[in-house]
Amino acid sequence: MESCAIGIIGMAVMGQNFALNIARKGFRVAVFNRTPKRTQEFYQTRVKGEPIRPTYDLSEFVRALERPRKVLLMVKAGEAVDEFIKALFPFLEKGDLIIDGGNSFFRDTDRRLKEVESQKLLFLGMGISGGEYGALYGPSLMPGGHKEGYELVQDILEKAAAQVDDGPCCTYLGPGSCGHFVKMVHNGIEYAFMEAIAEIYDLLRKVFGLQAEAIAEIFSTFNALPHLNSYLVEITEKVLRYRDSEAGEPLVDLILDAAEQKGTGKWTAQVALDLGIPTPTITHSVVARSLSSFKNERTRIAQYLSSPSKTLSWSPDLLIPLADALYLAELAAFSEGFHLLCEASQAFNYNLNLPEIARIWKGGCILRALLLERIQKALLTDDVFPLFATQEFRRDVEEKLPALRKVCTLGMEYGVPLPALSSALAYFDSWRSASLPANLIQAQRDYFGAHTYRRIDKEGVFHTEWGVNGL
Amino acid sequence: MESCAIGIIGMAVMGQNFALNIARKGFRVAVFNRTPKRTQEFYQTRVKGEPIRPTYDLSEFVRALERPRKVLLMVKAGEAVDEFIKALFPFLEKGDLIIDGGNSFFRDTDRRLKEVESQKLLFLGMGISGGEYGALYGPSLMPGGHKEGYELVQDILEKAAAQVDDGPCCTYLGPGSCGHFVKMVHNGIEYAFMEAIAEIYDLLRKVFGLQAEAIAEIFSTFNALPHLNSYLVEITEKVLRYRDSEAGEPLVDLILDAAEQKGTGKWTAQVALDLGIPTPTITHSVVARSLSSFKNERTRIAQYLSSPSKTLSWSPDLLIPLADALYLAELAAFSEGFHLLCEASQAFNYNLNLPEIARIWKGGCILRALLLERIQKALLTDDVFPLFATQEFRRDVEEKLPALRKVCTLGMEYGVPLPALSSALAYFDSWRSASLPANLIQAQRDYFGAHTYRRIDKEGVFHTEWGVNGL
Repeated sequence: MESCAIGIIGMAVMGQNFALNIARKGFRVAVFNRTPKRTQEFYQTRVKGEPIRPTYDLSEFVRALERPRKVLLMVKAGEAVDEFIKALFPFLEKGDLIIDGGNSFFRDTDRRLKEVESQKLLFLGMGISGGEYGALYGPSLMPGGHKEGYELVQDILEKAAAQVDDGPCCTYLGPGSCGHFVKMVHNGIEYAFMEAIAEIYDLLRKVFGLQAEAIAEIFSTFNALPHLNSYLVEITEKVLRYRDSEAGEPLVDLILDAAEQKGTGKWTAQVALDLGIPTPTITHSVVARSLSSFKNERTRIAQYLSSPSKTLSWSPDLLIPLADALYLAELAAFSEGFHLLCEASQAFNYNLNLPEIARIWKGGCILRALLLERIQKALLTDDVFPLFATQEFRRDVEEKLPALRKVCTLGMEYGVPLPALSSALAYFDSWRSASLPANLIQAQRDYFGAHTYRRIDKEGVFHTEWGVNGL
Repeated sequence: MESCAIGIIGMAVMGQNFALNIARKGFRVAVFNRTPKRTQEFYQTRVKGEPIRPTYDLSEFVRALERPRKVLLMVKAGEAVDEFIKALFPFLEKGDLIIDGGNSFFRDTDRRLKEVESQKLLFLGMGISGGEYGALYGPSLMPGGHKEGYELVQDILEKAAAQVDDGPCCTYLGPGSCGHFVKMVHNGIEYAFMEAIAEIYDLLRKVFGLQAEAIAEIFSTFNALPHLNSYLVEITEKVLRYRDSEAGEPLVDLILDAAEQKGTGKWTAQVALDLGIPTPTITHSVVARSLSSFKNERTRIAQYLSSPSKTLSWSPDLLIPLADALYLAELAAFSEGFHLLCEASQAFNYNLNLPEIARIWKGGCILRALLLERIQKALLTDDVFPLFATQEFRRDVEEKLPALRKVCTLGMEYGVPLPALSSALAYFDSWRSASLPANLIQAQRDYFGAHTYRRIDKEGVFHTEWGVNGL
């Protein structure tokens, strides 16, 4: 039997789809799953002549691979990754490659990289975005780790990835855990964009009393605007149009409003705090998901604390301000994310190529949007951070901030919480404040804790005895 | 020579002041510092007949202590704590006690507790709040760890602590790292209250063009209001009144607006994310400090992006709305903090007594405020979470939310960023929303990632094929 160019472990839907995708590009793929039944089912029901070879134990799986072997793990982030890496060690030889294609925490990836290195094997931590569909038809791939490892799979990955005008949505991102780090930040931005969309939806239904169909229409208009055209806006329209056939109502109205999360958004917020990079729109979006999960408590508290109950009649004049507010929230999220990537690139020696990251997000991934073309351009030609302050974007911010102010004010007046949109506004307003009130905070800290302060009129570090005995 | 009731290692200002405080309560105190010079200076310049015994090596220090020995570390959180713990081991015996009085990260405290236990010694991780002044005249003490350890120092600590009507501001909080955890959350709340004060100050100077003296007057009025009377409001007035004698200007105007931080606020935000407890006001206040530190970038960006340049004339009618907005931000921060404590109590088996925590914060600490009397009462009589929704507070929220809306709107209109105040508003508005737009987020997640959702009209977990091939 001809040996396989790559092997994939983990036959959940992402693993299945990625195996089909690669096989359809002409590469022979060996597949394995912990429970053989799933491999069998996959092979019997979904493989139609693609060069896919099902295997039923690890030794058979590894024997099916050409040397050096390339093994892609498509298993749940966490213990399963460690278990398979350890289980593979006895079967692999110097120069073989393991790729972790899950949403692993980047610090775990750093640890695994060392463990794999100690066996003289190669390792890549690779973010994969695009969901099931992307895995099947072309995802955005974010690999990082051993460059020699990348070279072994470059042809396969670049062919399997989504393709955009300027190449495949896959590139070697750099050493260490940078692939999973970049994917983590991608997801953090995704949390923020989704929350901002959800807030606009909430305003439209609560303040203007619009139904799902009417809101779908508005998102359809948004998606036709160059600054908002994006996968997430597009699927928002589709989601809002979907009717539950049984209930005869828009399905979205029947879904429990308690958002779940799998960790990447939370990690983004936590790492940003560690690195001192402000990512308020992303962070507040993660917090909003947590808060939403307290559904019972919210329902009870709503009985004690009434909302402003006014409504407004909808006017199409509001379309553009709403679109602009949503766009600025998205721009804030991208600005925060790229700022974090820039800092991490230095802090963790990733040596990231930021315009390339924008480029590989242009297709395949959940964040894909026309806007990324301009982001790529801004990152290529301007090194101002955050991104929104580059020449490419600063006029947009200037022009559209009044719309964001207006929309946030509307939410505040009508009691509709807009954590992402109002964080985005505070973000822009903070960055364009030559003076912030942190001087008062520094004075207070020095008052009660002798933490010292710096001055604007002279160099040095100062402490003041502010009062008699400090009180 | 008579032996000492307790020994203190670390003669920076907090250690010196706490040694003097304890000695003035009649306990003999041995002191030691890594550099002997500092011990000597302290003894020669500040000890005036207090029963304090300077020692110059660890063996002498330990020999000066009565058995079982009680050693309090007042050294910088981090490596120094580990170094001294290890250095003490050879000198201590079964049943001796080590107390870490620094702002240690609670997970380090958990680890140290095990290390100390393995030597058959006792350990307490103790938060100390109140700054230099508190350490000298009575701080708020937050000890947790081995209960037997607490009993050895109970008399000393409870006499050294600040005293309020219903007892000393010190109590055994529970097992493990809970003392440092409670202190961490105390500081998180402190970050938020300070940021909210700073935002009100920023509004007053930027929108109304008021000078520091006039703003001091306003904070003086605030401090006279029962719902705002607090140490932080009080020192804000004093800070704003302080004139730099050389420059002849308010000193606060000469202080660099780049806030620093030592970690406790950041940890609070990170742990809240881990435990899934929404603490947006606290978290956004930590983010605001990070953002303020980019002073050069802000100054440059301010040149590209102008602010709304209008100003308003000040009217005393705004005093009460501003006070109410500040109060609600403080209440949001306390609500977030106690919610986090409640969750941590279960997650980490701390078994915390929340009303007792409110009680020991009523005196000595940076958070002390009349409000804590009512918080204590609410926690004693009501188990609704978050705190603001208790019977004690919900009417306040109902009455004062319009003021918070008005103030946030003002900031948005005039381009003054109010991250803490607007996070507090989003927090209240989210909790009193029986429905939030997380249903749309769940639908999107199910659309692109088959993450499934729950429904409001039936039990179970559902997945929908939203579109043809998902796109």
